[in-house]
Amino acid sequence: MKMKLSEIARRIGGEVQGDPDTEISGVAPFDQAAEGHLTLAAAPKFLKRIHDCRAGAAIVPRGFTTASLATLAAINPAVAFAKAIALFFPPPEIPDDISPGAFIGTGVRMGSPVSIGPSAVIGDRVSIGDRVRIHAGAVIEADAVIGDDVEIHPNVTIRYRCRIGSRVIIHAGTVIGGDGFGFSPDGKRYHKIPHTGIVQIDDDVEIGALNAIDRATFGQTWIQRGVKTDNLVHVAHNVTVGEDTLLVAQVGIAGSVTIGRHAILAGQAGVAGHLTIGDNAVVGPQAGVGRPVPEGEVVSGSPEMPHKLWLRVQRIIPGLPELKKKISELEKRIAKVEENG
Amino acid sequence: MKMKLSEIARRIGGEVQGDPDTEISGVAPFDQAAEGHLTLAAAPKFLKRIHDCRAGAAIVPRGFTTASLATLAAINPAVAFAKAIALFFPPPEIPDDISPGAFIGTGVRMGSPVSIGPSAVIGDRVSIGDRVRIHAGAVIEADAVIGDDVEIHPNVTIRYRCRIGSRVIIHAGTVIGGDGFGFSPDGKRYHKIPHTGIVQIDDDVEIGALNAIDRATFGQTWIQRGVKTDNLVHVAHNVTVGEDTLLVAQVGIAGSVTIGRHAILAGQAGVAGHLTIGDNAVVGPQAGVGRPVPEGEVVSGSPEMPHKLWLRVQRIIPGLPELKKKISELEKRIAKVEENG
Amino acid sequence: MKMKLSEIARRIGGEVQGDPDTEISGVAPFDQAAEGHLTLAAAPKFLKRIHDCRAGAAIVPRGFTTASLATLAAINPAVAFAKAIALFFPPPEIPDDISPGAFIGTGVRMGSPVSIGPSAVIGDRVSIGDRVRIHAGAVIEADAVIGDDVEIHPNVTIRYRCRIGSRVIIHAGTVIGGDGFGFSPDGKRYHKIPHTGIVQIDDDVEIGALNAIDRATFGQTWIQRGVKTDNLVHVAHNVTVGEDTLLVAQVGIAGSVTIGRHAILAGQAGVAGHLTIGDNAVVGPQAGVGRPVPEGEVVSGSPEMPHKLWLRVQRIIPGLPELKKKISELEKRIAKVEENG
Repeated sequence: MKMKLSEIARRIGGEVQGDPDTEISGVAPFDQAAEGHLTLAAAPKFLKRIHDCRAGAAIVPRGFTTASLATLAAINPAVAFAKAIALFFPPPEIPDDISPGAFIGTGVRMGSPVSIGPSAVIGDRVSIGDRVRIHAGAVIEADAVIGDDVEIHPNVTIRYRCRIGSRVIIHAGTVIGGDGFGFSPDGKRYHKIPHTGIVQIDDDVEIGALNAIDRATFGQTWIQRGVKTDNLVHVAHNVTVGEDTLLVAQVGIAGSVTIGRHAILAGQAGVAGHLTIGDNAVVGPQAGVGRPVPEGEVVSGSPEMPHKLWLRVQRIIPGLPELKKKISELEKRIAKVEENG
Repeated sequence: MKMKLSEIARRIGGEVQGDPDTEISGVAPFDQAAEGHLTLAAAPKFLKRIHDCRAGAAIVPRGFTTASLATLAAINPAVAFAKAIALFFPPPEIPDDISPGAFIGTGVRMGSPVSIGPSAVIGDRVSIGDRVRIHAGAVIEADAVIGDDVEIHPNVTIRYRCRIGSRVIIHAGTVIGGDGFGFSPDGKRYHKIPHTGIVQIDDDVEIGALNAIDRATFGQTWIQRGVKTDNLVHVAHNVTVGEDTLLVAQVGIAGSVTIGRHAILAGQAGVAGHLTIGDNAVVGPQAGVGRPVPEGEVVSGSPEMPHKLWLRVQRIIPGLPELKKKISELEKRIAKVEENG
Repeated sequence: MKMKLSEIARRIGGEVQGDPDTEISGVAPFDQAAEGHLTLAAAPKFLKRIHDCRAGAAIVPRGFTTASLATLAAINPAVAFAKAIALFFPPPEIPDDISPGAFIGTGVRMGSPVSIGPSAVIGDRVSIGDRVRIHAGAVIEADAVIGDDVEIHPNVTIRYRCRIGSRVIIHAGTVIGGDGFGFSPDGKRYHKIPHTGIVQIDDDVEIGALNAIDRATFGQTWIQRGVKTDNLVHVAHNVTVGEDTLLVAQVGIAGSVTIGRHAILAGQAGVAGHLTIGDNAVVGPQAGVGRPVPEGEVVSGSPEMPHKLWLRVQRIIPGLPELKKKISELEKRIAKVEENG
């Protein structure tokens, strides 16, 4: 597959500098790019070394010029590069092909085209939109609803009545709609609280591999538009995750937490039950959140504290042995002064 | 489905106050309950607002009375409410129905009724009790034993020879009986230690989604009666988890740990190998347990310490920058005193 | 199955002391061993109690002698015992048997013997070596390459084009080759970065249950020869894990990290993106690595610090309340001295 730089500019936006007829046959990162490749040069460290770049062309920030190679100037070079990669690695066509090895229940509403792989199991009365790919071994239980342009990877489980929006990707092995971890203790044993609610996943969400997102006790666990989760994330019953929020790998969210829009929870962070995390909040890696986090706040540590305070505290912690010694010395000095006084 | 309050009382226990003929058509949490709903009002914050409640009836603690609505007084309102939910959301009937899309090995002992979904695979000589549901895509390897009234959700793997008791629920994607992480190093490489034991899961256990519970090197990894685990929990080889203990989401238990009865390990906590955690112990969220925890002890932090001490320590940590400044000031003051002396 | 001790010595190495004709019918740990068992007595605590041992024979360190029972003296007793267990629990034979319930794509290259279980799905143009077992429900997507002597457990997903070496074991539920967590933000939303690379797993690797190992943005995520991972491990896009390195349960490695050879990352540790961890480095349990770790270094804590420093710091942390009190007292004493001065 080859494309002229001008054609790429037409399709992903940006302004060509240098030869618009430069032939591009692939995309590659800065240090691996060779002749015919389009690369990304957005960070200053790459712009400084632009004359070393062996790519055929580079996507650069607006305002940057070079005579070394043809460029495509973009307002947001990283987004432009993501789009360029997608041009050269288009998703495979969706065959309208339900494998004879798939099991389809009764009363299923099937859009078109829909591809369903072998060993996949679609329960009764499931509704599937248009341009949907359900890969091998995925199980969609009864009465689930799947929107348009959805891709469900192998061995995913979507339990009964859960609702998935459009343009959603769910990676392999993930479980949507398991029972929440809810039990009533009688002092000796635990009595299971039936989970009567669902999981609702809105449009443009991407869920990583091996996530566990539990159904609500009542109502819904709600993953809102544009949320992206990494691998091995746990979302408990009745949680709401707001639009365009990121949950990085191995994050755990306890029951009934509400997370705002455009927040980021870094890897292995945990949030205790019933808390609210505001819009645009950032929770650091391995942080343990035990109190509400206001809008826009950045927190770190376990238990969490404001990130700037945490930075100062973390500079002191490794010095505690010295600090303790200093206090002992002070004690001796004051004792001596007292004696002499 | 409608039921009179008196009928509900007859089936779940408790004492009706107000009109025993109140018609109940569903259950709902306090703030979402509407006419015809039965709700739960156990916490003081709800009891104070009982007159705002729009439910048809409420389960309340014994001794609480109100003229606002009919009530069902229970010794343990939360347990009563869990039972009430189960009345209105009874588990589906179990058809005696082995899907033609399931694969059944030779010499399988099959109880009745048993439901097995499409793409499920039952190995040779597996024993399955009565009233068992094995959902789509689950794999039960050879010589495994499954008791009565068990539900195994989609895409679960139960490996060879493992033993599952009665009234056990295993949520989707979980793996029971993988090899333990055991290798003998020769200084350069690692030699695999074959894992010849099994996992034994006793009665009334519920295992969350995407758990990994490893088989023993010798003997058994043992999950005792009434244990409940949340999602993404790791239990290594030769661990014993005592009766009615809770393992919250993303907990990790290293090899040969013994946990007593009725303990609670909160989310993302970890326990180092070969330790003992006593009955009724509580391990806080994200705690890292590196020493034995005595019976009834509450520990927090990483490494763990008594919870009360941890609370005091955690109040000091964010003040360390101030404390350090204070020490510097003290140093200057004492230097001045020494000088003047 | 019975074997003379001399025969065992011949097959696993080591020197017989005592009766070489001692009949051995099984293997067992020290405290559970009975007549006819071969056991391991390597640690001093077991050697001290060797006369209590009821085994028929024991593997002991070279130079240790006893009259209590026959022994097999080995340079590395633990490795010898691992081999002895394998003698008595040999892996089952691999039938050349592709289940009629498996789904095989077109253009698949199949070695011999190969066993493929029911509900397993092999994509188009997959290449499978000799002596390979692919268990029930596993999904191998198109163009993947599997070497010789590989075992892939139930419900594993290996995505398109990933490459698996020889003598590799992949435990149940694991996902190899999911898309990396890579998005370009435009200030409002996130644009997916297509992941065009693969996962390459070299020879002699063992991957635990429910791991998520993501494919590279470009190039490869690379698990090198002899790596062993425990359960629920996350390895992000473009990570390299060096030869014979161990990743213990629930470890998380962020994108583009490079880990050297023979390193150990203990349970629940996390590593931030783009860092390098040197050969033979050790990262403690629950550690949070935010800076590069030099070769051979041992680090602990979150954020990480040298392990010896961490040990000293951890002894002080629980004493912080006392330390704070002491500082207050010093303050009062100095104030008094100042006053009197």
